[in-house]
Amino acid sequence: MLVVQKYGGTSVADLERIGNVAGRVISYREKGDRVVVVVSAMAGETDRLLNMAHTIDRFPDEREVDVLISTGEQVVSALLAIMLKTMSCDAVSMLGHQVPIITDSSYTKARIAAIEKERIIEELDRGRVVVIPGFQGADEKGNITTLGRGGSDTTGVALAAALQADLCEIYTDVDGVYTADPNICPKARRLDTISYDEMLEMASLGAKVLQIRSVELAKKYNVPILVKTSFGEGPGTLVCKEEQSMTMEKVVIAGVTYNKNEAKITVNKVPDQPGVAAKIFTALSDANIVVDVIVQNVSKSSFTDITFTMAKAEAKKAYRLMEETAKEVGAESVTMDEGIAKVSIVGSGMMSHAGIASKMFSILAAEGINIQAITTSEIKVSCVIESKYSELALQALHTGFGLDREEIEEEK
Amino acid sequence: MLVVQKYGGTSVADLERIGNVAGRVISYREKGDRVVVVVSAMAGETDRLLNMAHTIDRFPDEREVDVLISTGEQVVSALLAIMLKTMSCDAVSMLGHQVPIITDSSYTKARIAAIEKERIIEELDRGRVVVIPGFQGADEKGNITTLGRGGSDTTGVALAAALQADLCEIYTDVDGVYTADPNICPKARRLDTISYDEMLEMASLGAKVLQIRSVELAKKYNVPILVKTSFGEGPGTLVCKEEQSMTMEKVVIAGVTYNKNEAKITVNKVPDQPGVAAKIFTALSDANIVVDVIVQNVSKSSFTDITFTMAKAEAKKAYRLMEETAKEVGAESVTMDEGIAKVSIVGSGMMSHAGIASKMFSILAAEGINIQAITTSEIKVSCVIESKYSELALQALHTGFGLDREEIEEEK
Repeated sequence: MLVVQKYGGTSVADLERIGNVAGRVISYREKGDRVVVVVSAMAGETDRLLNMAHTIDRFPDEREVDVLISTGEQVVSALLAIMLKTMSCDAVSMLGHQVPIITDSSYTKARIAAIEKERIIEELDRGRVVVIPGFQGADEKGNITTLGRGGSDTTGVALAAALQADLCEIYTDVDGVYTADPNICPKARRLDTISYDEMLEMASLGAKVLQIRSVELAKKYNVPILVKTSFGEGPGTLVCKEEQSMTMEKVVIAGVTYNKNEAKITVNKVPDQPGVAAKIFTALSDANIVVDVIVQNVSKSSFTDITFTMAKAEAKKAYRLMEETAKEVGAESVTMDEGIAKVSIVGSGMMSHAGIASKMFSILAAEGINIQAITTSEIKVSCVIESKYSELALQALHTGFGLDREEIEEEK
Repeated sequence: MLVVQKYGGTSVADLERIGNVAGRVISYREKGDRVVVVVSAMAGETDRLLNMAHTIDRFPDEREVDVLISTGEQVVSALLAIMLKTMSCDAVSMLGHQVPIITDSSYTKARIAAIEKERIIEELDRGRVVVIPGFQGADEKGNITTLGRGGSDTTGVALAAALQADLCEIYTDVDGVYTADPNICPKARRLDTISYDEMLEMASLGAKVLQIRSVELAKKYNVPILVKTSFGEGPGTLVCKEEQSMTMEKVVIAGVTYNKNEAKITVNKVPDQPGVAAKIFTALSDANIVVDVIVQNVSKSSFTDITFTMAKAEAKKAYRLMEETAKEVGAESVTMDEGIAKVSIVGSGMMSHAGIASKMFSILAAEGINIQAITTSEIKVSCVIESKYSELALQALHTGFGLDREEIEEEK
């Protein structure tokens, strides 16, 4: 089996943990697997480097930022290769530009264009473990680039795709993907499998297990991802194609999640005329503000209210923009609410099941939680609610949809 | 003027100092100079990285050590480029493999084979300052290599040679080359100029200002080196060809130096027969022990004593080897003395001046210092003495040869 293993920052936080990683890699080699390892920087190192750059300049030159922060993963790659060789496992590090992992030139947020797999295959054929720093690549001219926060997951999946690996294992500090955040919902259950689409919704809705881009990439190239903890054994969660996922486990709802990082803006009493909504959302997109939920009430007069949510960080900017736009289009006023949360249920199964959405609304209503806006997609239903009810809503939905871990499982 | 400036670890030890470096670079740009900057790692960083490698393994894989320790200079290159751009001076970092600086594949002690100057020239033509990490290169296959301790000086001089720069400035924490170590000899005088050969002797004899290889390289390609402090202004010391040096300043003795890092071994009562000395020194060279001073007394019977010195680190190994060799050649015994020092006077002028050596012996004798061995070259005389007299010998020779700083200079 050819396996790509990616280890996150907490899994390589010090030499002892790097030693544990080496032990795990060697156990795979001893089974006869061919192993490519992708490593993150030691936990905190990327921030340490970025802080230096930001001490110099609020907007440091991005090409140089990439030269700077790519060193964190490089250090760990070298240390792991040294560790493996010390433990009599032949290994070699290969940096982004040495593979090469070719990206575009969008420094600090580059996208992978191609991976040349020949050198890796060559080293694997020599019986070596290949250690590759995550997060980094090089553009066509050889400039160092990085893939943006969490980019090491993407490196892992992209390598697995390029090498047609049998599996991409992502080692992190949690032992899999859960039906809800276990910190908030103590009865959350680890899923054995989850489909790419469900994982995408879970990831974009606030579950922090995998970087979204890596799941998109895995879906595109059909790379099975196994999310596991590096601090124990446990089977983890397999992220794979829907049919594989569904045949293994018949779930309707895969999980419940919430996101408190959004704010809600309402443009009140907007003249209900063609082109007005377009004006509002063009103004937002021109300002590079990504809008999430959009709700426009059915108009009962010649006016309507338009509500939307966006990342909290963008809210003030959006609010100022809407004040101008409101004048232009003749709307009455603009209100902003930062005290909201979006709570969502996710599941590929829900499309073929009637009444999922109404069940969600009933569960929330039973807790006395008012729903401010609703949005749905093929595999999720999201409700915007008052922020203070997020935990209550999450737990009620988790129980209501039968996701709670059974006692018998708990005793395992 | 095209100038290569190299800044050592203490000159880039933190962001404030990197800011000072940027200020200096900009002052050169404002004069219209084209500037290539070579930077070391922040003081202590290379040791920090090496310590991690050595915690894993006493003999860590050298290829990976180079991947590891080359990050120190990479970080500073990026930070300086960011700093320069923030201060409105266009700049770009260029790593060893990006230039490329092509070396052989002797990891941790690689030698530069070639430097391709085109990319640097291209960036200079665009009006940019080019920032290059010292110490690192890449072999033909693109593997990262490092040049060994102090290798950044070599990078600076090699770049100056390749670019046919007008000057290579080496910024360090001392303000030039002194007639003796100012910590030991308070009256030591900064030299305005010193020849390559004198500098080589000074460097190899213990003065720590410049790495020997960089001086050899500078001599080979006739690159003038200006050694300056980065913590002030001062004219520094120009290291250049002898005729230039001599016409500017008529010195007989350029400096006095000592080296306490050697040990002395004597093979006693060696049969005075052809081939015996060869056996002794072949045994040492086969064991890769570099011998420095060699003294064989004129034989007065059929026996002689052979004395030699070598690095203290090698002394125990050499001693064991000599015990075997002594048996083989029929010598009586082997003695080792680690309590020695080699004190030397260096000067291109001494060849044309009679009595320099005898003056040295007289000065030492006047202080009651016994000379255990003597060795001479065209531009130096070295005496092996008891270690405890080193400082006394240094000061006496410094005064005796008229090198002491005059009071009037001291008041400056």
